[in-house]
Amino acid sequence: MEDHTATADLDLAIRQNRTTNATVTLSQNGAPLAHRDIQVEQKKHQFLFGTTWGESTIALANGELSGKEKEQAELRNERFVQLFNQVTLPFYWARYEPQRGQPQAQRILNTARWYLDHNCVVKGHPLCWHTLTADWLLGLSNREILQAQVRRIQRDVSDFADVIDMWDVVNEAVIMPIFDRYDNGITRLCKEMGRIELIRTMFDTVRSVNPDAVLLLNDFDVSPAYDILVEGCLEAGIKIDVIGIQTHMHQGYWGVERTLSVLERFERFNLPIHFTENTIVSGHLMPPEIVDLNDYQVDDWPSTPEGEERQAREVVLHYKTLLSHPAVQGITWWDLSDGGWLNAPAGLLRKDQSCKPAYEELLKLVKGEWWLAPTKMTTDAKGRFSITGFLGDYEVSLESQKSLFSLKEKGEARLSIDFHP
Amino acid sequence: MEDHTATADLDLAIRQNRTTNATVTLSQNGAPLAHRDIQVEQKKHQFLFGTTWGESTIALANGELSGKEKEQAELRNERFVQLFNQVTLPFYWARYEPQRGQPQAQRILNTARWYLDHNCVVKGHPLCWHTLTADWLLGLSNREILQAQVRRIQRDVSDFADVIDMWDVVNEAVIMPIFDRYDNGITRLCKEMGRIELIRTMFDTVRSVNPDAVLLLNDFDVSPAYDILVEGCLEAGIKIDVIGIQTHMHQGYWGVERTLSVLERFERFNLPIHFTENTIVSGHLMPPEIVDLNDYQVDDWPSTPEGEERQAREVVLHYKTLLSHPAVQGITWWDLSDGGWLNAPAGLLRKDQSCKPAYEELLKLVKGEWWLAPTKMTTDAKGRFSITGFLGDYEVSLESQKSLFSLKEKGEARLSIDFHP
Repeated sequence: MEDHTATADLDLAIRQNRTTNATVTLSQNGAPLAHRDIQVEQKKHQFLFGTTWGESTIALANGELSGKEKEQAELRNERFVQLFNQVTLPFYWARYEPQRGQPQAQRILNTARWYLDHNCVVKGHPLCWHTLTADWLLGLSNREILQAQVRRIQRDVSDFADVIDMWDVVNEAVIMPIFDRYDNGITRLCKEMGRIELIRTMFDTVRSVNPDAVLLLNDFDVSPAYDILVEGCLEAGIKIDVIGIQTHMHQGYWGVERTLSVLERFERFNLPIHFTENTIVSGHLMPPEIVDLNDYQVDDWPSTPEGEERQAREVVLHYKTLLSHPAVQGITWWDLSDGGWLNAPAGLLRKDQSCKPAYEELLKLVKGEWWLAPTKMTTDAKGRFSITGFLGDYEVSLESQKSLFSLKEKGEARLSIDFHP
Repeated sequence: MEDHTATADLDLAIRQNRTTNATVTLSQNGAPLAHRDIQVEQKKHQFLFGTTWGESTIALANGELSGKEKEQAELRNERFVQLFNQVTLPFYWARYEPQRGQPQAQRILNTARWYLDHNCVVKGHPLCWHTLTADWLLGLSNREILQAQVRRIQRDVSDFADVIDMWDVVNEAVIMPIFDRYDNGITRLCKEMGRIELIRTMFDTVRSVNPDAVLLLNDFDVSPAYDILVEGCLEAGIKIDVIGIQTHMHQGYWGVERTLSVLERFERFNLPIHFTENTIVSGHLMPPEIVDLNDYQVDDWPSTPEGEERQAREVVLHYKTLLSHPAVQGITWWDLSDGGWLNAPAGLLRKDQSCKPAYEELLKLVKGEWWLAPTKMTTDAKGRFSITGFLGDYEVSLESQKSLFSLKEKGEARLSIDFHP
């Protein structure tokens, strides 16, 4: 009963924060199109529903697959396009430029273009991170590391300026200078520069190359350390466009209350928030005593029927909780299919790309309850029709004529569309 | 064996960081005092060895005690003067000004003067804190709370300008805006202002009234949240004079390694560090599951012989660890006598003011191993004598003539003193 009430509260908040009551007046060459049969349908969500690249998609986009592998990759892409409008692509330095001076730009560029052709927002992840940074930094002085890091950003942001306008600029800065699992160039650099000065340098560098890009600070640490770091950056005059928050709930779903309490600590900055890396497993939970998730290495981590049911319930609640809060503008699911990071059953699809209940339930929301399917209507005497729709792009059809319009702000909207041949 | 080695390392580092090899040339009216018998003795440590007020000392300084109580308070004061050169006095707003407009300044002022007469550095604690703040703030708007807080600082810092030049300005800012145990005016204010802007306002206010005061930010949270907050404040241009770190080891001594790792995270700011609130109990440890120490309420928490031995060993190691690090400039023991905060046996003295082993061992260091007792020497042919001494104030006597000199910097020093009638 309580859960039901809570969900109803979330649903109401989602309606309040995400939809507009729009009255659209149709005319033809200025004359109202009264009492006409039309069809209206949503084409795109303003909210970013995203996921990650998938190695198979990169291979597919580069023409490297055939046979069964190709079919599987195509099936994954179909599932992707059906549900998502944002993708996060990998720029881990260790893999992107394993040999200094030989960046693997082309494969990622081809992949980014495929996503762009499918009307997606493409985000690059990450430009500066201590994990998976280039090993060859270890042979450099801190001054040279800084120079290499800045040049890497200049080069990659410039190479992708046509296709990527959103970047996770600095990743996991809270632990960056105290990370002690292994020596690496970026921890060394951050220890010397301090977190804020490092963040300032990296943000300034991206901004100087692509002034229109949306720049994120991203972290898994949601303790006060992170919101104090954000406050410190803002007080120091660094322009952060979006606060990125990871969840990675391999050890269990946070629940509505914790999620809202995290949001409460970050909403005060009046900045958009993206939930950049979300996972809920459909198998057994990772033991609670694991501190660094990377320490949990298993050969087999099966997805189970009960786990999939639980995952579906939790995914729905997670998305509803986040959409209920006006600051959240995007959610990126980490690994669309099973078998990705940590070999965890965190996908919305199984390894064979079949849909788990979580995928189906999410689809029911994103392209069902939160979506306007093609709907036949008739305009009134003044040529008007009304819809209540989620923010995004819409199309209205009058016989063979079509016109696009957007709902950009929640609340009320009045729009006019004139058809002219 | 390993412990022994570690302690030897600490002792060596203490010598390197805390002592000076000084050559002092004595003359009389410009002529070298060659081959003369003199006596040299240390009068004061530069390092701040401090503790807290003690209610009985406040009562004694205000002539409120008689009989046995007076004797006990006097005994406590004797023990204090023997070991310490710094005191922290209470300015908890709830107690200092329980009725708005009626501050209890006089009792604290009389107490501060007693400590000043005994050659102590007096610190006020704290000027802005959510705990023990004035209840009557709850009836005010946030704007009025801010005004009251600023005026409280202006008034109190001004009232004590002659006797207190060191303040814990903001206490426990890391949890200040998220403290949820009970509603209070300062948490409300910090939630609205943000931590950094609140700290800036309070520091600016103290500085405007007493520009020469030494101002501390103080916290018990030694997670990255605190060093990120310090970094944020410094990047925002706030002048923090000293970083204050609490330890309150009711659940067990940190140990050398943890203490040094905390120092490692704060030393990068190149600011002095005070360990402002230190406790190690000489009874059973508080259970580890307690998060807020204030939740542990016991009627009786006895000091035990075994506990006192353990406390003595740990106190010695704690002080040696802190003195081995050049950034640390002061250590304040929290509650000289048992029965203070939480009724814990955290004192160096028992309730009857008798000395625990920890007091005796600390005295052996502070006024023994780290101290130059009155020492007879003879000047050389050029009127010179040499000492290796801990930084601080010294007195040299030649028959009935006496002169003071100070060792201010570690390393090497050459000084000249001319006696003239």
